[in-house]
Amino acid sequence: MMKTVERQTGVALWRQIADRIRLAISNGDYDATGKVPPETTLAAQFGVNRHTVRSALAALSEEGLVRAVQGRGTMIERKERVSYPISRRTRFSQGLGRQVREIGTELLEHMQVPASGDIAEALGLAAGAPLIELSTVSSGDGRPLSTAVSYYPAERFPDMAEEYARLGSVTKAFAAHGLADYVRVSTEIVARHADAQELVLLKLSPGAIVMEAQSVNADLSGRPVEYARTRFAADRMKLKIET
Amino acid sequence: MMKTVERQTGVALWRQIADRIRLAISNGDYDATGKVPPETTLAAQFGVNRHTVRSALAALSEEGLVRAVQGRGTMIERKERVSYPISRRTRFSQGLGRQVREIGTELLEHMQVPASGDIAEALGLAAGAPLIELSTVSSGDGRPLSTAVSYYPAERFPDMAEEYARLGSVTKAFAAHGLADYVRVSTEIVARHADAQELVLLKLSPGAIVMEAQSVNADLSGRPVEYARTRFAADRMKLKIET
Repeated sequence: MMKTVERQTGVALWRQIADRIRLAISNGDYDATGKVPPETTLAAQFGVNRHTVRSALAALSEEGLVRAVQGRGTMIERKERVSYPISRRTRFSQGLGRQVREIGTELLEHMQVPASGDIAEALGLAAGAPLIELSTVSSGDGRPLSTAVSYYPAERFPDMAEEYARLGSVTKAFAAHGLADYVRVSTEIVARHADAQELVLLKLSPGAIVMEAQSVNADLSGRPVEYARTRFAADRMKLKIET
Repeated sequence: MMKTVERQTGVALWRQIADRIRLAISNGDYDATGKVPPETTLAAQFGVNRHTVRSALAALSEEGLVRAVQGRGTMIERKERVSYPISRRTRFSQGLGRQVREIGTELLEHMQVPASGDIAEALGLAAGAPLIELSTVSSGDGRPLSTAVSYYPAERFPDMAEEYARLGSVTKAFAAHGLADYVRVSTEIVARHADAQELVLLKLSPGAIVMEAQSVNADLSGRPVEYARTRFAADRMKLKIET
């Protein structure tokens, strides 16, 4: 059984309870019934009051993990984190494969910006070179999975925003510019608490964690074509590294 | 400048402040002075009281990021996360390279256990096959960086615990069993809040995040030799994926 939660850890009790229930769901502890135990049972198990349990379940419901069904209890909607492969040939849509029925991509914003030092260096451009910046959110079956800010050399990919909006895919937008193939050259991953904007974009409950991947893709001659900062909702995603 | 913190996010205020200061340090915002601004300045900037700022600085001090120096203020000790490369040839000690002066490894516990379903499958063994289980903590310059539970087929590597304790390295303990080379075959990464045990082992402040990597290594014929669950302190480490 799970341990009771510790107080004074700097994370709200309801969030700790949500973490424990999420883990139990993922471990299959509730597979026999397909639903989480009643609020009173959970409250006794964790040594907290029903209000705290209710807040935890509300957060999990918001995440799409459970659903309260009148007269039946809190049903488990989804067990597993979606696995996102990172390899030399990383492609968002293909990567999710059969794990989600429907992939959604939304272009939130786009603009032309001058390349700052770090990004210019990553893309092998002079500082100040013009870039197309895209802000996007991707989802699986209606649940936001990741949000990204991506940069493309504007001279080579002038219509990146329009093509992405039209085609819903970076790979297809590259192809529309005559780039048939590209490969991942570097990825760095950190984890941290989501900021206020990420909470909204990814529809996360407060205190949620994101994994942030900073990545560079290049064409087959090694010339960089994309620098991206992708934030994955840690409660919903795992990263599968293919070395 | 940084935004003021939001209340009611499920994460204690002092921890949010610690996160903001950590980010500012990492971004180089305080490079001009080499120290963080005075408590009163930070309190005003974040709209919190000095007690909260003091708790945040105490947490950062515990992490080895800053150090209070009598009469001088809170000095910045370390700016960057340690970068840990994950590639086909992942080696802990070599991976950290010149980023730390001294690598410490500690064997906390070892025992022989029967392989459970998941681990047996990952190692290509029958359920119940005997495994050597090692619990370890690794540190850089005295700061804990990761803690791992690792499993080795006991028939092939009967002295894994003794050799690891003696040599301080998995690579060397494998070599002592006649295994000269091995490669990473799979890695999955999730992020979550540290549990009570991880807080202690990694000397983390409450509410801290860990990145957990589940990995399998195999010999050059593809036969698995190790299954490991490594928890990296997210505030101190980033993972660099080499695809």
